[in-house]
Amino acid sequence: MTQPVDDLITGLRSRLGSRQVLDSPEVLAVRSLDMSPLPLLQQVLGREAVPPLCVVRPRSTDEVSAALAYLVGRGVPVIPYGGGSGVQGGSAPVPGSVIVDTWAMDRILGLDEEDLTVTVQAGVPLATLEAWLGERGYTCGHYPQSIDLAQVGGLVATRSSGQFSTRYGSIEDLVAGLEAVLADGTVVRVASQPRRAVGPDLRQLWIGSEGAFGIVTEVTLKVVPRPPDRWLQAYAVGSMRVGLDLVRRVMREGWKPAVVRLHDATEAQRSFHGSVAEGECILLLLSEGPVGYAQAEGTAVDTMARAAGLRPLGPAPVEAWLEHRNDVAEYEAYIRRGVIIDTIEVAAPWTGIADIYEQAIGRLVDEVPEMVYASGHSSHSYPQGTNLYFVLAAQPRRDADDAARVYEAIWSRVMETTLALGGTISHHHGVGRFRARWVPRDLGTSYELLRRVKTALDPLGLMNPGSLLPVDPAPGETDH
Amino acid sequence: MTQPVDDLITGLRSRLGSRQVLDSPEVLAVRSLDMSPLPLLQQVLGREAVPPLCVVRPRSTDEVSAALAYLVGRGVPVIPYGGGSGVQGGSAPVPGSVIVDTWAMDRILGLDEEDLTVTVQAGVPLATLEAWLGERGYTCGHYPQSIDLAQVGGLVATRSSGQFSTRYGSIEDLVAGLEAVLADGTVVRVASQPRRAVGPDLRQLWIGSEGAFGIVTEVTLKVVPRPPDRWLQAYAVGSMRVGLDLVRRVMREGWKPAVVRLHDATEAQRSFHGSVAEGECILLLLSEGPVGYAQAEGTAVDTMARAAGLRPLGPAPVEAWLEHRNDVAEYEAYIRRGVIIDTIEVAAPWTGIADIYEQAIGRLVDEVPEMVYASGHSSHSYPQGTNLYFVLAAQPRRDADDAARVYEAIWSRVMETTLALGGTISHHHGVGRFRARWVPRDLGTSYELLRRVKTALDPLGLMNPGSLLPVDPAPGETDH
Repeated sequence: MTQPVDDLITGLRSRLGSRQVLDSPEVLAVRSLDMSPLPLLQQVLGREAVPPLCVVRPRSTDEVSAALAYLVGRGVPVIPYGGGSGVQGGSAPVPGSVIVDTWAMDRILGLDEEDLTVTVQAGVPLATLEAWLGERGYTCGHYPQSIDLAQVGGLVATRSSGQFSTRYGSIEDLVAGLEAVLADGTVVRVASQPRRAVGPDLRQLWIGSEGAFGIVTEVTLKVVPRPPDRWLQAYAVGSMRVGLDLVRRVMREGWKPAVVRLHDATEAQRSFHGSVAEGECILLLLSEGPVGYAQAEGTAVDTMARAAGLRPLGPAPVEAWLEHRNDVAEYEAYIRRGVIIDTIEVAAPWTGIADIYEQAIGRLVDEVPEMVYASGHSSHSYPQGTNLYFVLAAQPRRDADDAARVYEAIWSRVMETTLALGGTISHHHGVGRFRARWVPRDLGTSYELLRRVKTALDPLGLMNPGSLLPVDPAPGETDH
Repeated sequence: MTQPVDDLITGLRSRLGSRQVLDSPEVLAVRSLDMSPLPLLQQVLGREAVPPLCVVRPRSTDEVSAALAYLVGRGVPVIPYGGGSGVQGGSAPVPGSVIVDTWAMDRILGLDEEDLTVTVQAGVPLATLEAWLGERGYTCGHYPQSIDLAQVGGLVATRSSGQFSTRYGSIEDLVAGLEAVLADGTVVRVASQPRRAVGPDLRQLWIGSEGAFGIVTEVTLKVVPRPPDRWLQAYAVGSMRVGLDLVRRVMREGWKPAVVRLHDATEAQRSFHGSVAEGECILLLLSEGPVGYAQAEGTAVDTMARAAGLRPLGPAPVEAWLEHRNDVAEYEAYIRRGVIIDTIEVAAPWTGIADIYEQAIGRLVDEVPEMVYASGHSSHSYPQGTNLYFVLAAQPRRDADDAARVYEAIWSRVMETTLALGGTISHHHGVGRFRARWVPRDLGTSYELLRRVKTALDPLGLMNPGSLLPVDPAPGETDH
């Protein structure tokens, strides 16, 4: 900060228009939080989050460019903010920072029905886009739980995966082209091509960039005609190991059911009570695609499941999940009552995954006395491995410091167990500020690549500082 | 060059061992060329290629690191060299340069049958790897025409696609992990994970890097069990437009036949004589996958093809193509007789592809009097578009300058037509030196990202100079 806040706001208003710079206490309060559970809980417990100096709301790529050139030129840290659905603190202001949000960049720019792409400004909410596409017979096939809040630009920047990713891919498979603005205001645009061999895929630099290089301003996504055919089936499974092994073999064969969810016995009792016996896990399968595909895939995986001893439960549990899959009201209610409720997703090759599940849950239950609930499921599978999604609740004493202590006890155990057993610290929630300190260990020697790219694109380190790359990695943390 | 060649060779030998540094005239002559047609033809016509100062042949990542640190530290340009199957001049020495080849890094390091990955040193030839995997019941599903020459590291660095890419993906879909050495000798390693949301996918920086950032030293590739089931069918097609439209609709539905090749009437007569009538194009389809998949896909696409008026020809033309697909002896025979014979592959969204095909062929035939043959096919399709692969022959006067002039006349017409109609200049042969001058226009404003990454990873510009990034882009060439 090299000048008073009033001067900064005046300068921004003269460049973007006065209505594009917000500084009311209400707006600053809303923009001081995303959906990260710990700060939300700490707010309930009386600790206020750090507000930004102001919120800039550009309407166009040119206005993003003007805002970044102005702010970075004055040494002001910039925090990009999309739908605010992040759960890793990636959009939380740091002291003396300005939020640039994408809420006024909400135009759907065009659907190309021959090339199967849709182009949008970064601030279009995914739910809005999906509704618009649905009226025209299309979908992106991307359905993260955050769909009602998340915006397209944020989904790209945080490296999102959707609930149907096994068929449609994650966001890196769905981005056909994009435009972004670097820290210094330089606009870069990667045009959509079916494939190009003209150097590395430069779109990839932005997918998972988490605001650390600049701001994604426009995205061209692939679309598909809404699939005409669907097949559903649920199964009772004796154990997570049996279920994981079946999922591995389904992936190995080359099948790609859109939904493959294996919930542990704890979750089976909580969410599918009555469908399975105590101690049984539940597997949900959903295939969809062109006429002839879903039935062929369903028949094949059903045969494999029965041969592995799974007990078919019919489609009802899958239908129930489809109906309630995005309900998070319960989480918010717990937080209001002072409970830490959080989700942690990791991924690992098949060889390590069952051990990570068992050891992470085991350590939480054995070593964290405040734990009141710990469960997990696998929901995104690949021929090379799968993810684990832990759902965790703990009851700290009713103050913000104790909440942070218990939160740390939970996170460090899951992160350390995952790294020790060969997994990666994040499957699709990204890194933000909460996971940043484990990034050098996760990336090993390739962290040096990330560091050099960061310096090349944001030499002053003002874009979302402390998110994705830790501010000051401890010596030795990159050795592995 | 800051010291005599003898000192340089002595320095390299002291670091890597004397047998890892080659300087015999025979070796230097072999390493002064790759498979690029123009220099091969010019050699036939009496012009010798530029040789390297010497050839360094490291056996390990550490030796690559030592060689790069030594050479770059002394300001010597380094040209990475794999199997030598490139056709864009990307491995051709520049004056005063040293070749670092990967021929002594030829170990298969391990197959993981549970995680479905195989790890190899960069210099393992793909054909060797595929034979080794085949004995164990696996394949990478990657079959470029260069399979008998190309090495795994080079396939990554040049952004390769294989003949079955519609099912298995191109190399960017097949790399699970990798290791590389930066210009200054820094070793970076990206461990294989099924998926991670820990910043951008850093593997992608190396896929298409073309030696401009450093050298890929180790690759972990995904493997699949050899598919048990296959379906083949060929069709006569009235025109390229009809055929392209059918292929577009097959992709749109979500089907992914491993092979989808639409050859124009010229190629149909040359390679499938007797199967189709004069003026007819030919479509080859091959589906493979788990039991139940290939038949379901085959039935669906066969129904679409017949409804579009295509005439089924049975499987024989597909079988003939499978048998002869990698024969390039004819090309070499033409070059020995002083004929320019070359292939150019581009890609474009569906909306532009038929116009590019017609206009590129039309301009070559109308405007280049030396043309003796011009044909094309589409062989890699996507929901968003497809590639075109032109096969071209011309008869220059019998001197090297005239060969270069005719070559330029051909290439500039295909490149300019493709760019003007919204396509990309390369689908899977990469850029090398011959296409580098069109890269800034192809990438548009995103060229700035490539330039910044290059500077971050190779600040002195000594890694494969002039390949991928043009040495001196003309002003205005990045404006689009």
